[in-house]
Amino acid sequence: MINRLCIIGVGLIGGSLALALKKAGFCGEVIGAGRNREHLEKALRLGVIDRVETDYTRAVHLSDMVLVAVPLGAMKAVFEKIAPALHPHTIVTDAGSAKMCVIEDAEDAFGIKVNQFVPGHPIAGTERSGVEAAFDSLYQRRRVILTPLESNRADDVKKVRAMWQAAGAEVDEMGPRHHDLILAGTSHLPHILAFSLVDCLNRLDDVDEIFKFAAGGFRDFTRIASSDPVMWRDICLHNRDAVLAMMQRFQQEVDEVRHAVEAEDGEQLLKIFTRAKQARDDFSM
Amino acid sequence: MINRLCIIGVGLIGGSLALALKKAGFCGEVIGAGRNREHLEKALRLGVIDRVETDYTRAVHLSDMVLVAVPLGAMKAVFEKIAPALHPHTIVTDAGSAKMCVIEDAEDAFGIKVNQFVPGHPIAGTERSGVEAAFDSLYQRRRVILTPLESNRADDVKKVRAMWQAAGAEVDEMGPRHHDLILAGTSHLPHILAFSLVDCLNRLDDVDEIFKFAAGGFRDFTRIASSDPVMWRDICLHNRDAVLAMMQRFQQEVDEVRHAVEAEDGEQLLKIFTRAKQARDDFSM
Repeated sequence: MINRLCIIGVGLIGGSLALALKKAGFCGEVIGAGRNREHLEKALRLGVIDRVETDYTRAVHLSDMVLVAVPLGAMKAVFEKIAPALHPHTIVTDAGSAKMCVIEDAEDAFGIKVNQFVPGHPIAGTERSGVEAAFDSLYQRRRVILTPLESNRADDVKKVRAMWQAAGAEVDEMGPRHHDLILAGTSHLPHILAFSLVDCLNRLDDVDEIFKFAAGGFRDFTRIASSDPVMWRDICLHNRDAVLAMMQRFQQEVDEVRHAVEAEDGEQLLKIFTRAKQARDDFSM
Repeated sequence: MINRLCIIGVGLIGGSLALALKKAGFCGEVIGAGRNREHLEKALRLGVIDRVETDYTRAVHLSDMVLVAVPLGAMKAVFEKIAPALHPHTIVTDAGSAKMCVIEDAEDAFGIKVNQFVPGHPIAGTERSGVEAAFDSLYQRRRVILTPLESNRADDVKKVRAMWQAAGAEVDEMGPRHHDLILAGTSHLPHILAFSLVDCLNRLDDVDEIFKFAAGGFRDFTRIASSDPVMWRDICLHNRDAVLAMMQRFQQEVDEVRHAVEAEDGEQLLKIFTRAKQARDDFSM
């Protein structure tokens, strides 16, 4: 149970957590903190938060749990702002899609108090963004990965875990570097490919016809290209090494396929496609 | 109205057309023709076809319209088998995903009778295949592209058009080369990318974890990797030039993104992702 939860960055991720915790009766009051008062007033009207604070220091000072759910590029500035306001018992966690970079930012900003920071990543979301898109069941049957620091108090990790579980999620733990590689493969690379494919087709001469004759599969395949460009720019920049490593693995795979097409090697194409179908069918079961 | 429709290759595509035309009352009898009697008996039991014929010549001889819905690599052999059985009034059409190669096969097999062949491509389908997956509304609000030959009788093209319209589709016409390029971009390339991504991840060491932590977006993005590998091998081989041209365009796009990530050029990444999101959002409206 959390008395006061402060959410910095009340969008799809932070807003959905607030709604889920209120529904579960797991949270007394939700303070929405941010720079944009108009945006926060909307979250208040939507019933996502209970109170608006544009002064981060004050918001954090009042809270026992703080979730920072801003794009990766904005984490450090937020951490620096809230660092002075942390009580010894305040727990800070985040919802960043990459963890190594957030941990570095937290170490820089919090100094010795970094032990109060429990890094987390809810693997949930839709291609929609903003507080209007928030809904209370976003985390049902979704996974949240925590990448605790060695210096974290076990009790703080437990509280962050309990919070996500109350929202309906299944919580796992792993090392931050491992997290960043796994997510680069299953999330970051697919988004890059979807953005790249849509932009590539959009730059062709017959663009109107291209999209006119795009079928259902294409619609599914490119849905994630509707995601927030700022968030994805930040992920590419802040999980750069893992993203580049996965792009290189993918490049090798595409080269294999291209060589097989060039050489009219049907056997090789069938082998690759069959292996992929098998893996996809196993995964979706 | 068709008296007897012969479907060679009673799978998702052929089976769904049969069901749609029966429902619309547009077709007297549907003959399912193929080499595999057991498979055809199943289609009969499912009510997809009215009659089983393993003798292509006999099936075609009885029919006024013939739809060949087999993988691209099997088209020519089917054309060669049915060529001798064509009455002067029989119309043959196909459902191949590429058109240049099918037209060449038809010219080789039908000779002077190629004027009775109206090439077509229903842009519909799901990642499922086989007659069990057939359903009567597959073509509702879907597009079918015809790429008529100069030698086609206008009346034959009209009849093929009417057949697809009766099944619920909207019918367009274009040249076969243009068709092949457009589809290479909107369908063939996305499938190649989906197969490649899943296979690439499946070959990593942490494969169990990879798929365990894959989220909703990944599921949509890779659904088309469950498609029939034989069909997609054939598309790669038979629409080779257009597929390679599109793969090259895509390669240039991915190179741009990779360079931007390497150079930590956030402005360029934001530009590409924003352009893609805009195009995707416009398309889905």
